[in-house]
Amino acid sequence: MRILLASRNAGKLREFEALLPGVELVPWPAEAPDIPEDGAFFQDNALQKATFAQAWWAGQGAVPVDGVLADDSGLCVDALWGGPGVLSARFAQGLAQDAKNRKLLALMPEGAARTARFVCVLAWVPRGGAARTFSGSVEGALALEPRGAGGFGYDPLFVPEGHAATFGELGPEVKHALSHRGRAARAFLAGL
Amino acid sequence: MRILLASRNAGKLREFEALLPGVELVPWPAEAPDIPEDGAFFQDNALQKATFAQAWWAGQGAVPVDGVLADDSGLCVDALWGGPGVLSARFAQGLAQDAKNRKLLALMPEGAARTARFVCVLAWVPRGGAARTFSGSVEGALALEPRGAGGFGYDPLFVPEGHAATFGELGPEVKHALSHRGRAARAFLAGL
Repeated sequence: MRILLASRNAGKLREFEALLPGVELVPWPAEAPDIPEDGAFFQDNALQKATFAQAWWAGQGAVPVDGVLADDSGLCVDALWGGPGVLSARFAQGLAQDAKNRKLLALMPEGAARTARFVCVLAWVPRGGAARTFSGSVEGALALEPRGAGGFGYDPLFVPEGHAATFGELGPEVKHALSHRGRAARAFLAGL
Repeated sequence: MRILLASRNAGKLREFEALLPGVELVPWPAEAPDIPEDGAFFQDNALQKATFAQAWWAGQGAVPVDGVLADDSGLCVDALWGGPGVLSARFAQGLAQDAKNRKLLALMPEGAARTARFVCVLAWVPRGGAARTFSGSVEGALALEPRGAGGFGYDPLFVPEGHAATFGELGPEVKHALSHRGRAARAFLAGL
């Protein structure tokens, strides 16, 4: 099975390669246009990305794929009223990830609860079929400072419930078993 | 005391007139530029609006004000991962408010918890002084359909904790006593 992944994020590509064994993933080409995401919800954005990518791909006469998969995900922090949430990729754009992580921690009000969750919504557009979405989330808390070099994005900040290490410190197997993206990917495989 | 309100929202102006007795509120002029809001958090947006408005006003040589007040607020729905949150004003732009309210309700997953909160962050830039912020929130739940013509925005959807009526049905006095904006305004008055 061959799937076009509507993302230029190398971290997402690497994770889906592990999470979707037996699937040939086609990454979004360097020469393709940027994929828009301006929805107010993860689900909107995932659907917007998948349908945009599907339409563009179909117009290229490129190698056929069995469908297009898009991922919209983010970190929702209770003390920041659910932010950066759907704006996770857009927060502090231009900063390197470590600086972005430290900037996010600096926004936390003193003494506030550090509870947070990672959310992932996948949108799937099969060739000739209708779009569907699958979601996953994981509860946890923000660490006091970034820890670990594993994963990507806000992973060094996030301590999943029941653990003491961050997603940046836990290996990929442990992360995938717990993570928002792992859960959404398993829901997608079960729904295929 | 004369305060420039960095908002064109008639509902906000009306509420601040009730919430800030004795203050002469100057509304944002029709001929003034649109006030940008592209932050990832309520606090960013409130500060961005207040500093933008303060700089523009200072360049006009218009009637002096004692300071500029901006309000960034929104509805955070747990089942929508805190959305529309900071994107509350941008969600379904172009739709009339009642259609927007119904569209939001239609996004609720079946059987999901309906808990939500309204959040308000005020940014205050006094003449010649540094910016400060004040915030307020109110917990509640989404009604099954819009009810009541009071208030504005998502008020017809929101049932505050401990009540059975929506902010659209409760009168302004009850709303102001409970609301996110009422709490933030009282924190502002106490901090002045």
